[in-house]
Amino acid sequence: MTDLVLTYFDFDGGRGEPARLAMHIGNIEFTDKRFPMAEFEEVRKGTPLGQVPTLLVDERQVTQGNAINRYVGKLAGLYPEDAYQALLCDEVMEGIDDLLNSLVRTFGLEGEALKEAREAFVAGPVVRYLAWLEKNLAQSGGEFFADGRLTLADLKVFVLVSSLGGGQLEHIPVDVVDTIAPALSEHHQRIGQTAAITDYYAGR
Amino acid sequence: MTDLVLTYFDFDGGRGEPARLAMHIGNIEFTDKRFPMAEFEEVRKGTPLGQVPTLLVDERQVTQGNAINRYVGKLAGLYPEDAYQALLCDEVMEGIDDLLNSLVRTFGLEGEALKEAREAFVAGPVVRYLAWLEKNLAQSGGEFFADGRLTLADLKVFVLVSSLGGGQLEHIPVDVVDTIAPALSEHHQRIGQTAAITDYYAGR
Repeated sequence: MTDLVLTYFDFDGGRGEPARLAMHIGNIEFTDKRFPMAEFEEVRKGTPLGQVPTLLVDERQVTQGNAINRYVGKLAGLYPEDAYQALLCDEVMEGIDDLLNSLVRTFGLEGEALKEAREAFVAGPVVRYLAWLEKNLAQSGGEFFADGRLTLADLKVFVLVSSLGGGQLEHIPVDVVDTIAPALSEHHQRIGQTAAITDYYAGR
Repeated sequence: MTDLVLTYFDFDGGRGEPARLAMHIGNIEFTDKRFPMAEFEEVRKGTPLGQVPTLLVDERQVTQGNAINRYVGKLAGLYPEDAYQALLCDEVMEGIDDLLNSLVRTFGLEGEALKEAREAFVAGPVVRYLAWLEKNLAQSGGEFFADGRLTLADLKVFVLVSSLGGGQLEHIPVDVVDTIAPALSEHHQRIGQTAAITDYYAGR
């Protein structure tokens, strides 16, 4: 039995959350090592590239969020075995990281500078990437992003949409996804009704 | 038979080159659609996210470089089947994209601003990421990055090291990898001796 420790911020979102959800859905035993934001400077010193999430797999500490997502996705049965379906799953996971990179560049700003940066983030990357995701979902049949079933791609989109509409990000209107990409709101609602996800958040 | 068209800049490097190498090594038939840098503004209008490479798989145009690498890597037999070895392969591929993102932010600068940005790029991200890659290679046995054989991770590192030492990037000393990470220079030399890679570049 492989020993798994996932290290990430103590909040229900971001780049670490899809892996947590996948392991809960797949009943994969792991240590959910959470730390408060204030400890990040200390925690990052012990990581390979100064970033989280990391996954300790037995003795080896691995970095890069989507690499981790893909690995636990395979363990949990939530990653396509077919190469072409895996391509579609990967495309979505990696595209979302572009968007998160744009968002991260607004962190640390304050006041008017934050407002301007967030509004530009919404008007530019958010509009573009949500439209792309909607088109992608439609091309894949409208229900799931790959493989005709729940995969890591759906979890990654689910966590993104939760964050954008969660009201925690200043100057991002909570109805942004409803307005720009209603099909993603419906997808979010549908994925959120997965029994293992409902149970998980009910227990947090 | 799947019809594949890879669209990328007409130079032997960057995010499109590992997929080209993989398909040549694996004898995968594809259309190598190259365009000159000056046409990028026009080409990007026809891509899902304004980025290249893209891969047209029959009728569907897919974006995101590592998603494409992974897919053609599977077709070419250059991607680990074992989930843990695939994790190690992915970690390297995705870490390198961080480094490329830092490099891309220096593009378009000129004169003193370019010099400063490139020197900071070398002193910061390059030093950190090459040290990480060296450690990674050592942990995986010293010869290959994953699976004890040639995989996409080796090709991605090979293309990176070719670029850093290629003399095309102003203010990046051509001996930077030799100096900072000699084990990666040796890896580069070894991978470059793969018959299919030697043949490929000899024919270009």
